[in-house]
Amino acid sequence: METIEKQDHTKCKTQMVLPVRDALDVLGGKWKIAILGALFFGNKRFSELKRDLEGITDRMLAKELRSLEMNHLLSRTELNTFPATVEYALTDYGHSVQKVIEALRDWGLKHREKVVDEFWKG
Amino acid sequence: METIEKQDHTKCKTQMVLPVRDALDVLGGKWKIAILGALFFGNKRFSELKRDLEGITDRMLAKELRSLEMNHLLSRTELNTFPATVEYALTDYGHSVQKVIEALRDWGLKHREKVVDEFWKG
Repeated sequence: METIEKQDHTKCKTQMVLPVRDALDVLGGKWKIAILGALFFGNKRFSELKRDLEGITDRMLAKELRSLEMNHLLSRTELNTFPATVEYALTDYGHSVQKVIEALRDWGLKHREKVVDEFWKG
Repeated sequence: METIEKQDHTKCKTQMVLPVRDALDVLGGKWKIAILGALFFGNKRFSELKRDLEGITDRMLAKELRSLEMNHLLSRTELNTFPATVEYALTDYGHSVQKVIEALRDWGLKHREKVVDEFWKG
């Protein structure tokens, strides 16, 4: 991974702003990265995802799953069960998001520590 | 950075979904990470940021800058110029987002390559 360094300002748009926007066009929004993160722990059914993603509605979860499937980040498999169930799994391409997810998770953990720290310091 | 491995499903919520959500509460939305990314190239004035972030409205840029300032990710300095100008800079805490931004940028670059590839393959 190329480290960011102070560069010619003109490169800012093509080397930073546009790639970040491309990534967020696919991964952006409140839930998509959390859904992919949950699937790193193993394949899951709709109801399992819903339990992990506390607060998401059925409609929103279905919409986000469809969008991630359309972008080839996860696969949807109908299991031969009665009643019919569907399992979601990361594709190989879905696994390519791992560094993004880990970086966000790490930052989120540190941010929470900081907020808690500041709260106790008053 | 701890690598994600298949773990006990019960850990999924606390070790992944909630930290990712904490991060996105602060960094989420269409523009914030792109704004921070632009500031990695050096301090910028409002008008310079607006040029980098093609498509953002004045109102939205002002709102996002305020939110990032409130979360101590960037600083706002009134310069002693006429007419008055304001410069935005990453704080030390703002620099802590570097890994997130680099991961998103790298993924965005690869995603664009993939999309272009698929287009030409037809």
